[in-house]
Amino acid sequence: MLKDVVRTKTYQNVIYQNKFLFKNKIILDVGAGTGILSLFCAKAGAAHVYAVECSDMADMAKEIVESNGFSEVVTVLKGKIEEIELPVAKVDIIISEWMGYFLLYENMLNTVLYARDKWLVNDGILLPDKASLYLTAIEDADYKEDKIEFWNNVYGFNMSCIKKQAMMEPLVDTVDQNQIVTNCQLLKTMDISKMVSGDASFTVPFKLVAERDDYIHALVAYFDVSFTNCHKLMGFSTGPRSRATHWKQTVLYLEDVLTICEGEALTGHMTVAPNKKNPRDIDIMIKYALNGRRCVVSRVQYYKMR
Amino acid sequence: MLKDVVRTKTYQNVIYQNKFLFKNKIILDVGAGTGILSLFCAKAGAAHVYAVECSDMADMAKEIVESNGFSEVVTVLKGKIEEIELPVAKVDIIISEWMGYFLLYENMLNTVLYARDKWLVNDGILLPDKASLYLTAIEDADYKEDKIEFWNNVYGFNMSCIKKQAMMEPLVDTVDQNQIVTNCQLLKTMDISKMVSGDASFTVPFKLVAERDDYIHALVAYFDVSFTNCHKLMGFSTGPRSRATHWKQTVLYLEDVLTICEGEALTGHMTVAPNKKNPRDIDIMIKYALNGRRCVVSRVQYYKMR
Repeated sequence: MLKDVVRTKTYQNVIYQNKFLFKNKIILDVGAGTGILSLFCAKAGAAHVYAVECSDMADMAKEIVESNGFSEVVTVLKGKIEEIELPVAKVDIIISEWMGYFLLYENMLNTVLYARDKWLVNDGILLPDKASLYLTAIEDADYKEDKIEFWNNVYGFNMSCIKKQAMMEPLVDTVDQNQIVTNCQLLKTMDISKMVSGDASFTVPFKLVAERDDYIHALVAYFDVSFTNCHKLMGFSTGPRSRATHWKQTVLYLEDVLTICEGEALTGHMTVAPNKKNPRDIDIMIKYALNGRRCVVSRVQYYKMR
Repeated sequence: MLKDVVRTKTYQNVIYQNKFLFKNKIILDVGAGTGILSLFCAKAGAAHVYAVECSDMADMAKEIVESNGFSEVVTVLKGKIEEIELPVAKVDIIISEWMGYFLLYENMLNTVLYARDKWLVNDGILLPDKASLYLTAIEDADYKEDKIEFWNNVYGFNMSCIKKQAMMEPLVDTVDQNQIVTNCQLLKTMDISKMVSGDASFTVPFKLVAERDDYIHALVAYFDVSFTNCHKLMGFSTGPRSRATHWKQTVLYLEDVLTICEGEALTGHMTVAPNKKNPRDIDIMIKYALNGRRCVVSRVQYYKMR
């Protein structure tokens, strides 16, 4: 994960270029991993950093903090945010890299919100404090052939029941920006400093207008995060027009191949909710319609991220 | 896995080009997955195929067998080999794709041997019936820099404790054949039709002779499998000189960079054993020595595949 340069460099820039935020402050790093963000904060002048990590990586983080000479400033706490105790009443800043694939898959947002409510001072700062989910549509004939239609004829046998399953699984992969056929629609913005629950259940409309005559094989979701408390706005995008990150994009293949003309709109709704049986999984429903000159389609499709 | 063409095509060729083996025979497919090998056997004229699969993929396999019209010939049995019952006394052939990374990691060999002892007729056939493990040595400065030395300076911090851990983890990756510096040494051949236990505990010597002046950064292990009962010998290699498979190769980085001259030999022993605490993990010990004109080294190194 450290090798995701976009991710780590953005956090590093946010911290090193905004030392005024960190100077003499108490920081809580939620899900600290190797402790890299805590070390950045320490170097930026923090009074103290509490690096909370529940996996065995906490032992590594301790060793790393020590061998880099920051034991006085960074305290690694092995455990869950919900269970650990801090030796301070409140912290000034909570920093965390909590985002999952599709922003919401296996994310740590609820943990961050819990930490916010329990440990952050009233006018405290969350880094990042905004996250937005976007949707666009792509031409993807080659890959759909390779990843989905493949199952129609596997060494001479029909495995279309696996195809059905493959269609239901959003695919985490990088998309070439030249495949983008429509505008990019903002689906939802989350204000991490104010939102009440991190449970991802929502229904949002979308309207994707074709920017050229083309075919649409899939919808593509991605997210941005921002740090609005910096001297100037900072953040990064995981969209297909930005430098690739380990989050890539999330591709949702459509049953239909849509023949869309420039200016025509693919409209619909996306519903996202944790799976009832296994709340780690995410159920996605997409209702879409195109009433075009060359193609009239209306359909509901179900996906499951697991 | 079906998209591993080398693998699936070899099994397909073995079956379709050796129909004489399958004609009117009873086959047991161990770890059938989607049932592809069972379908190949059915198409090649088998009297009956029992496809045993313990995961939920068995349900898919049933649907696939049915939708391809082979329900009369292929019976999918959901369960463990150790627990299922066959409606026949014995089978004529056991086919299985049981190999794991490094041949032995998370493999199904013990299951195949159990099935052999319980269900295979005396002069029955195992497909494949031979598997061999090989070792060679490579120049790999760029990747070692990227994958190992990276941890010496991570955005300005020393994370050498992670480097130590990274060194201990054999890396499954494809190696360019131009990186090969020495001969390829056969470490061990397993005769699946005769061997008593599939537990992978052994110590074997190796002697790798440099074919040019170069540096050695890593040892590379890979395997071949063969089907010796075919009309002519068939099989495939997962070595760096063959077309890539999903098994790739297994790279074991060395503490030392060895400056080796053409004709000089890197000698040693490799010990492989299941980890005592977690038998799914594999412990590997490599003892190596080079007594060369430009480099004299002798060392013991430990690895763990998990």
